[in-house]
Amino acid sequence: MSDPLRLGIAGLGTVGAGVVKIVRQKAQLLQSRTGRPIEITAVSARTRGMDRGVPLDRYDWEDDPVALARRGDVDVFVELMGGADGPAKAATEAALETGKDVVTANKAMLAVHGKALAGAAEAAGRVLRFEAAVAGGIPVVKALTEGLAGNEITRVMGVMNGTCNYILTRMESAGLTYEEVFEEARALGFLEADPNLDVGGIDAGHKLSLLASIAYGTEVAFDAVELEGIGAITIEDIRQAADMGYRIKLLGVAQMTGRGLEQRMTPCLVPADSALGQLEGGTNMCVLEGDQVGQIVMRGAGAGEGPTASAVMSDIIDIARGTRISTFGRPAAELKPVTPATSATPAPYYLRMKLADKPGALAKIATVLGESGISIDRMRQYSHVASEAPVLIVTHKTSRPALDAALAAMPATGVLGDTPVALRIEQI
Amino acid sequence: MSDPLRLGIAGLGTVGAGVVKIVRQKAQLLQSRTGRPIEITAVSARTRGMDRGVPLDRYDWEDDPVALARRGDVDVFVELMGGADGPAKAATEAALETGKDVVTANKAMLAVHGKALAGAAEAAGRVLRFEAAVAGGIPVVKALTEGLAGNEITRVMGVMNGTCNYILTRMESAGLTYEEVFEEARALGFLEADPNLDVGGIDAGHKLSLLASIAYGTEVAFDAVELEGIGAITIEDIRQAADMGYRIKLLGVAQMTGRGLEQRMTPCLVPADSALGQLEGGTNMCVLEGDQVGQIVMRGAGAGEGPTASAVMSDIIDIARGTRISTFGRPAAELKPVTPATSATPAPYYLRMKLADKPGALAKIATVLGESGISIDRMRQYSHVASEAPVLIVTHKTSRPALDAALAAMPATGVLGDTPVALRIEQI
Repeated sequence: MSDPLRLGIAGLGTVGAGVVKIVRQKAQLLQSRTGRPIEITAVSARTRGMDRGVPLDRYDWEDDPVALARRGDVDVFVELMGGADGPAKAATEAALETGKDVVTANKAMLAVHGKALAGAAEAAGRVLRFEAAVAGGIPVVKALTEGLAGNEITRVMGVMNGTCNYILTRMESAGLTYEEVFEEARALGFLEADPNLDVGGIDAGHKLSLLASIAYGTEVAFDAVELEGIGAITIEDIRQAADMGYRIKLLGVAQMTGRGLEQRMTPCLVPADSALGQLEGGTNMCVLEGDQVGQIVMRGAGAGEGPTASAVMSDIIDIARGTRISTFGRPAAELKPVTPATSATPAPYYLRMKLADKPGALAKIATVLGESGISIDRMRQYSHVASEAPVLIVTHKTSRPALDAALAAMPATGVLGDTPVALRIEQI
Repeated sequence: MSDPLRLGIAGLGTVGAGVVKIVRQKAQLLQSRTGRPIEITAVSARTRGMDRGVPLDRYDWEDDPVALARRGDVDVFVELMGGADGPAKAATEAALETGKDVVTANKAMLAVHGKALAGAAEAAGRVLRFEAAVAGGIPVVKALTEGLAGNEITRVMGVMNGTCNYILTRMESAGLTYEEVFEEARALGFLEADPNLDVGGIDAGHKLSLLASIAYGTEVAFDAVELEGIGAITIEDIRQAADMGYRIKLLGVAQMTGRGLEQRMTPCLVPADSALGQLEGGTNMCVLEGDQVGQIVMRGAGAGEGPTASAVMSDIIDIARGTRISTFGRPAAELKPVTPATSATPAPYYLRMKLADKPGALAKIATVLGESGISIDRMRQYSHVASEAPVLIVTHKTSRPALDAALAAMPATGVLGDTPVALRIEQI
């Protein structure tokens, strides 16, 4: 019998407890699949003695995760504490320094310190893996790093924050406002302590930056992600987009362009009948496009105890089987600096605005668009509300700078009743 | 610089030529991702001198794939010839005997000889990998073997023959008969030389048997797959299923039951608004369900040069990176013999029949169903055609044996106008 693989688990929230349960309850299955026993040596969390739904008394307890990471009887340090810095980073560094492999679900830490930590792992001859950091149970890190490794990746897309997708689909199905569903989501415990991590797109942006690094061999560049949350989306936007055959998603898109790496995590319109358009509730979806494979779509639970623990176990099992892959699929030193290219790829846009009830109002707006080189694909004017008419415009493909120029020129027409909303229509 | 990984490629059809192109055109990318050069030493095919769209003159040529497999300057034997026996099997065995790793796209060979070849690979200390054998470019073998390895797999489903899905969706969209679309597919080159491999469900059944072995740790048992092709599906079935909210798919399902392993590759009804129900044309879809992860859906191209070569490259890249995983995810000697359990899982069924225009005809059929313990969920009788009325029945959940008993008892009622068609409704 091979030597056991000994885990030290720091962080015993939902996911940590889930991992402990799997290791306890599936010992035989794990041994059969890896050829060696997987055991837990020690655990660490902020509060000892809480009931976590699984007995922990047979494991050593460490109050300090760094001490846990440094133990000589741990082979794999499993970091499930979260937070970009602080104990998570200190313990991860300690684990690598003292010769442990590390498995983490910590997207924030990797989004900020990914290259440095990947480099530290390689310098120590250890691996640092993070399947659970992106899209929960969907094995998308593995699919991109390994399954599609023979491809030039042409585009990566994802709906990777279940809370945002829950809010957007619930607004539509229940006819509620953003604020109403936001409060519902908070009551249901769907929101992070800082809700802006969810609804501001930050959490999903972290995930996108990790996938982009794997896809394009670039340094993780979360700072270069164009971020826009869902807080400005109204129920009218959702209904009017539906009327045009679209649904609104907080969609991440990463693609390498001639001008640099474009990374966006923004509300976009996608065709209502596409797989992304049909994604309901808290489910996640990743779309990987490669020059050989075409388009691969993966759908699954993006959060929760079982799905996230499943992803953590996948990394642990890889290590138990002897699989050794660089954190971002190639040596950290080879990851190239990012030249950010914000919204470099042209796209059609959806514009919503209210126009004053004056003769020629629409013509003035059309003229402004035309002067920026933007042509109109479809336009709808709805019944007047008071003295203003809601107008929807779907443009032909245009660049974001051209659109911004047009938007900047619109107030001078004197016919705008509000600030126009512009949402990109991502072509799928 | 690490030693190059040297490939010997046998079979230079679409996929083989695609692999050669990737190795030639992406040398730098592959080296960056694997840390070593990937090179081709020698190739083999039935006919030399054909134009395959890629220059082959810098590689040694072997007329005999077994000789190629035995070469001392080959590290990985890439088997892309096909066929369950004959040269493919002989060359695979020769490669393993002489210490090569093997990458194959040959589902038929593995469905028949999977356990023996996996055992031969392990005896030789080599790996035998087959991502390209199942669902083309979708990295489903990797997802199941590695990504979900921390799960007890509860069900595996798949639409894994693009030709069948093309035929079924084209019948629906164009209103054509099975025979008409079959001829179209033949003219388009979508059909295997023996079309029964496609439309009889054999090719897809091979794939299902491989996934089942990984999922449940069982020997590959293609013989135990309940196979039913799509040849009996009529345009009326498709329309009437749609009328009830379903679409018909050639659906593979593998699940472990208390009575043994259930493996089916049969036409099934699935909800029209499910991901499987919405799958169009030649695309494939695999659905993996685990006790931790819930449901993972993967969609992509199931065939074609690029997608299949992408999958072959994924295995080659794994080997170049040093990843060593047993063929079916655990040692061949541990794979358990299969106790087949045909249609063990109860399900609702869709029944289509014509009933004589006699008073009480429908009551007689309902009585027969009731006597087998089958209750009716929904029933529709359509306008009479001549003296017979088309009748559709959707039953509540029932066992297949109970249904078979009812079907066997129906002729004695004297009211049947034809032989009833029974299709399982798979619950998703």
